[in-house]
Amino acid sequence: MFELHPQLDKDCLLIDELTLCSVLLLNDSNYPWLVLVPRRDNIREMFELSVADQAQLTRESSAVAAMMAQHFTADKMNVAALGNIVPQLHIHHIARYTNDIAWPGPVWGVAPPKPYSELQLRQLIDKLRQLLADL
Amino acid sequence: MFELHPQLDKDCLLIDELTLCSVLLLNDSNYPWLVLVPRRDNIREMFELSVADQAQLTRESSAVAAMMAQHFTADKMNVAALGNIVPQLHIHHIARYTNDIAWPGPVWGVAPPKPYSELQLRQLIDKLRQLLADL
Repeated sequence: MFELHPQLDKDCLLIDELTLCSVLLLNDSNYPWLVLVPRRDNIREMFELSVADQAQLTRESSAVAAMMAQHFTADKMNVAALGNIVPQLHIHHIARYTNDIAWPGPVWGVAPPKPYSELQLRQLIDKLRQLLADL
Repeated sequence: MFELHPQLDKDCLLIDELTLCSVLLLNDSNYPWLVLVPRRDNIREMFELSVADQAQLTRESSAVAAMMAQHFTADKMNVAALGNIVPQLHIHHIARYTNDIAWPGPVWGVAPPKPYSELQLRQLIDKLRQLLADL
């Protein structure tokens, strides 16, 4: 039975469940930031997934990245599987802007997370659910 | 006609050419670090590749990451497509250790690159070419 890692559960909100991955929103308004988590147990690396799951992850990751690039009019998408701290495989999808607080560096460790307001969260989650349903 | 971005050409050494991607070694002995560059023009994001190329990239990326994890006995692989500075699509594959200089953070911007010696480079490149030929 798949269980989300407690750290991801703490930092993120569950937005949707695609065929393979749960889609989480990181509660950090510094950047539009979604995290894809394949619902598979005891997987730390993408290459540990079955070949079929790797192909499905590629489809879901590309669809999510393209949707984010368009909806958030990103200057660049950053897509990364790091997992040095949280071992459960999760893939970051971050919309970057040439005027964001970490540009042109990576986002990790640059600025403390800036939580969304309740209203912002509700509106963003509604919109993301609609966009993900259309994928 | 595909041409490698001059910054990648400057920072890296060409190790091999897989079906889709050129495999480059970043000349930084702080971490075993390969970069995959799909030989396609004017592509900045993975989702801009054709569906067939995306599938091929997934196969090549997984094969390279699994090879690196085993050969370098990495504690974790970091796989990332950032491209905020060099716009040509390139995917980092970095073998990480719990005692490396940037752990547990990402590697970018932490330590200046530490070039390999000529002997180290020759030996490493020979070994990597052999391992990549066996994929």
